[in-house]
Parts: sequence; structure tokens; C-alpha cells
Amino acid sequence: MRERKVKAGDAFAAALRSGDRRALARAITLVESTRIRDRDAAEILLAALLPNTGRAIRLGISGAPGAGKSTFIEAFGTYLTGLGRRVAVLAVDPSSRRSGGSILGDKTRMEKLARDPLAFIRPSPSGATLGGVARRTREALLLVEAAGYDTVMVETVGVGQSETAVADMVDVFVLLVSPGGGDDLQGIKRGVMEMADMVLVTKADGDLATAANRAASDYQAALHLMRPKYSGLSPNVLKVSAVAGHGVAEAWSAMTAFHQDLAATGHLNALREDQARRWFWSEIQAVLNDEIVADPHMAAKAAGLEASVVQGRALPHAAARALIRDFRRA
Amino acid sequence: MRERKVKAGDAFAAALRSGDRRALARAITLVESTRIRDRDAAEILLAALLPNTGRAIRLGISGAPGAGKSTFIEAFGTYLTGLGRRVAVLAVDPSSRRSGGSILGDKTRMEKLARDPLAFIRPSPSGATLGGVARRTREALLLVEAAGYDTVMVETVGVGQSETAVADMVDVFVLLVSPGGGDDLQGIKRGVMEMADMVLVTKADGDLATAANRAASDYQAALHLMRPKYSGLSPNVLKVSAVAGHGVAEAWSAMTAFHQDLAATGHLNALREDQARRWFWSEIQAVLNDEIVADPHMAAKAAGLEASVVQGRALPHAAARALIRDFRRA
Repeated sequence: MRERKVKAGDAFAAALRSGDRRALARAITLVESTRIRDRDAAEILLAALLPNTGRAIRLGISGAPGAGKSTFIEAFGTYLTGLGRRVAVLAVDPSSRRSGGSILGDKTRMEKLARDPLAFIRPSPSGATLGGVARRTREALLLVEAAGYDTVMVETVGVGQSETAVADMVDVFVLLVSPGGGDDLQGIKRGVMEMADMVLVTKADGDLATAANRAASDYQAALHLMRPKYSGLSPNVLKVSAVAGHGVAEAWSAMTAFHQDLAATGHLNALREDQARRWFWSEIQAVLNDEIVADPHMAAKAAGLEASVVQGRALPHAAARALIRDFRRA
Repeated sequence: MRERKVKAGDAFAAALRSGDRRALARAITLVESTRIRDRDAAEILLAALLPNTGRAIRLGISGAPGAGKSTFIEAFGTYLTGLGRRVAVLAVDPSSRRSGGSILGDKTRMEKLARDPLAFIRPSPSGATLGGVARRTREALLLVEAAGYDTVMVETVGVGQSETAVADMVDVFVLLVSPGGGDDLQGIKRGVMEMADMVLVTKADGDLATAANRAASDYQAALHLMRPKYSGLSPNVLKVSAVAGHGVAEAWSAMTAFHQDLAATGHLNALREDQARRWFWSEIQAVLNDEIVADPHMAAKAAGLEASVVQGRALPHAAARALIRDFRRA
């Protein structure tokens, strides 16, 4: 049985490696499934593909709503496929629901890129928790790499904690900001500024050209006040206009230069190792939760203990020990 | 054996309930201990005291380094003991080490309050992780309540993520800010502003009086732009001068009024229930980690799997499943 599964998995993996888009889409659906049988198949597939992963440049694209993320990704992705690169766009949006008007949901936000044979766009997996969404996007990232996409963009929704999750799965974290009023700096979460490897001031054209200049120097000044993420590698601030097509090539040059510097200094290797380590420990916790929820006895026990804690009849630590004791014996 | 322990625990609990400071200090040392035997004793003690907890007003005191937290706590605590209240001061400082110049470490920062018979000051537990420090401070908070302290302040170190941990164990989260230049708003992490139930502009005296006025209106304006934490309850911005003694009584009035509003609207009950629920689930993860680390077989297995993941030979999810499978069988 297991052998038959492995065989079918081999054919599936081979199709995916050859760049078969349907196989890729089906594989992502498989890793997003919460059914136990699908999960087993997903693991066999991922294990087979693991040697084919890790070769893309992984870019995080973040920015508050309205910063121009989709417009930039459309222009930037099209520029890259024009260079012959294969571009995959993924997203982390914990608020998305399959049924709703999800980010990237219908690909209408990136019409041109969605029709581009060298590009692959996948909406955010749905899920109630950021952790769940991030887990699946990480695996989708490995799948698109195995399918030969050499440039992966992971887009954040720009609210909540999704930036941290995305920063923890990419090589270069890019923050997009629009030239607003003088107060735009305050609209950015400080923690996000600290994560940025590069800031792109969008909409740097027409009426907003002057405001974009000012925003660029404001961000440059603000970044100088912060401790650099990597010693000797300070973040660039660049202006782009997706509409006029300005700055897109320069942004790509800056990203590849930064990525090469990361690799040359050993930072890239250390970064990916740290990401893998943190991913492993967060999976341990996620698997524990999954198994508690999936086991009726454990789920009932957890619910009962939780109620005791909430009602002030038991202490969290003692209740947690009781649950783990039961879990070990079950 | 267990019965004897319970008996000794009863006497200990009774001493603590009577307000015996030595018993309280010893109990906190017990909950901070990582020895398994101490942990068992701590749990028996905490369980015995649980009915005596929950009656204090729990205040979080946060602010960037230099905001004047110690000076405020000294003046504010002394004011409260003057009203006959019993005041406990705890801290969450993940960077503290017993040996180092820890925050609150030698109580020299709050000399007067440290000598006050109605006050109890306890430095932050030491610990490598924020999670570990926060766990112990939560339990210390229950102990000081059982010992009859009716006002508990939990101070944050003002850097990193300690604010979130403190906000998750108190009723009213107070942010202290000093009247700096025009750019002080940007020094505050946006997430921390969003947590604040009240902002106190410190050092509102002498040369800084004008700057304090401006800072107060800046923060008032900034808070208006944010979605309120509780509908119908917007955060106050007040000015205080610990040196001149101004605003301290007003700050206390505002805190008690806010606390009463929280209680009357049902928010306080819901808040404490949510906190207990989150505490329970974080304890489940912490206990799992503790048990993995404490068991040589599991620790070796975890280290081996982690290495496979980091070296790209195994996938985090599969490795985590293997570890949990082993953990359940062990």
C-alpha cells in the first residue's frame, strides 16, 4: 500500500519537476488539505522533491493596504519573465476565505501576469490562523521551486502579524510604501521597518513625484536610525513607478545584488538554517495541537481542562501537565 | 509521601495567606525553580492558593528605557501605600540575569518603596526566553494576590516583546512616555500604542512642562486614529511629574475608573478568561518542550531531527510528526 503510494508519488513528482502547471497546482492543493490521507501523500511528495528545492531567490513583498503591492508585482513579474525568469507569486493572508474576495483570489489584480506562461500565481491558502496559513505557504514555496520557478514572491496582506511569518520564509524582505502625506512613516509598524532589507517608494510619477522624493529621504533617514539587520549590509531605498515603468529594473538589480551579498557573506546560509530550525519547532507545536484536536478523547480532555482553567478552578501549568501526561500515555 | 507534602504545603499556604513576607518570597523562589521536585511543590501550593487569587487590580507599566518607569513606580507606589493599599511590584525582563545589573535587581531604583512595609518588590525572574520569564511572573502575580496585595504592578523592560507578555497578564496596560523632541511618537512601537489603556506623559515639570503638553496632545491625536481596544472605552492621556508629585492621584483615579468600567461592562471578566485560555495553551507547548528537553532519548531525537531539517535532508512537518510519534510512545 505504502509502496504503491510511493510509486504514484514518483510519477507525480516527475510531472511537477518537468514544470507541469497542473501537477503543481494539484500538489499545492494537496499540501493545503487538512485530510490525514492527503497529508500523508503530501509528505511523500515533498520528501521526494526536497533535493530540488532551495534554488530560487525568495522575495517577501510587504506593505500596508494601498501601498501598491499588486500593481508592483504585476509590473515587476512581467519585467522578470521578459528576462526569461520563471516567476511564482504566493501570498500569506490569514483573513482570506476561499469564498470571499480574497487577495489574489481571482487573479484579476494581476491580469497580465496571470496569463503569462512563465508565471504562476497562487492565492493565499485559507485558514483561521496565521500559523496554519504560513505552514502551507512554506510548503507551496518548496513546490514552486521544485517546479523550476527561480524567482518566488511571497506577498503579505499588510495587516496583523503576517509580515513576520513572511520574513521568516524569504531571503529578501521588501517593504513597499506609497508617498502619502508627511505622516506616512507613522503608518508603518516599526517592527516591519526593522525587517525590511529594501524599501520601495511606489507611485513615483506624475503628481506624486515630489512626495515620493520626500518619502524616500524620510525612509532613508529613518533606516539610518535603526540597527542594521546584517552588519555591513544596509537597506536600500528606491523609487519605482509601475505605471511609467521606472525603477523596476533598478529594483531587481538591487535585489539580486543584495541576495549575492547575503550569499557571499554566509548570511544567506545562516538565515535559511535559522528559518528551518524555527519552522521545525513551530511544526512540533502545530502537530501537537493537530493531534489533540483530531483525537476525540484528547480533545474532550483539553476542552475540560481549558474550562477548569478559565473558570479559575485549575492552574494552567498543572492542567497542561495533566494533558501532556495523558497525551504521552494515549 | 504526597500527603505529607500536602500538609507542609498547607502550613506554607497559610503563612503566605496571612501576609508573611518571607513565606511569599520563598514561594516565588519555589515557582521560579526549574527543579522537578520544586515544580511539584509549587503546584500543590498554587492549587491551595488559587481561591485566594484574582482580587487585585493588575496594572502593566510599560515604556521605553528612559521613560521614567522606576521613578513613577516609586512615587505612585508610595502614594498608594499612603492610601493604605498594599502594593506589589513585579517585572518581566527576559534579558535579566541574577548576577547582572538586572532591572529592579537590587531594589536601589526604588529605595523608598523597597523599605515600605506595605510594598513588596520582586525583581524579574531570570531566564533565557521571554516565555519562561512570563510563565513565572504570572504565577508570582497569583502568589502576591494570595498574600493580600491589592494592587499589582508588572513592569516591562520596554524592549523586545515583553509588552505583549505583560499586557496578557494585567487588567490595565499603562504606557509611560517622556516628553522628548517632536519625534518621540516614532520611538514607540505601534503595537504597544495599540495595547495601551492609558498613556502617562512623565517628567511634566520645569523645563519639560511645555514639551509634555505637546506630547500629551500628540499622543491624544495618535490614539484617536486607532481602533479602540474596547468599544466605548477610549484611553486617557495624562501628565505626571513624579518629582513634583503632580498627576499621581489623577493617574490612580483614572486607573480605578477604567478598571471599574471594565468590570461593569463585562470586559474584565472576558479579558481574564481569554488570558487564562491563552496561558493554558502556551503552557501546553511549554510543557511539551520541557519534557522533550528533560528526557535524554527525546532530546537526542529532537536534536537529530533538527539537524536533518537544518541540513535540508528532512521536512519540518515530517520531522515534527516523527518526534511527536516518538513522544507519544515513550
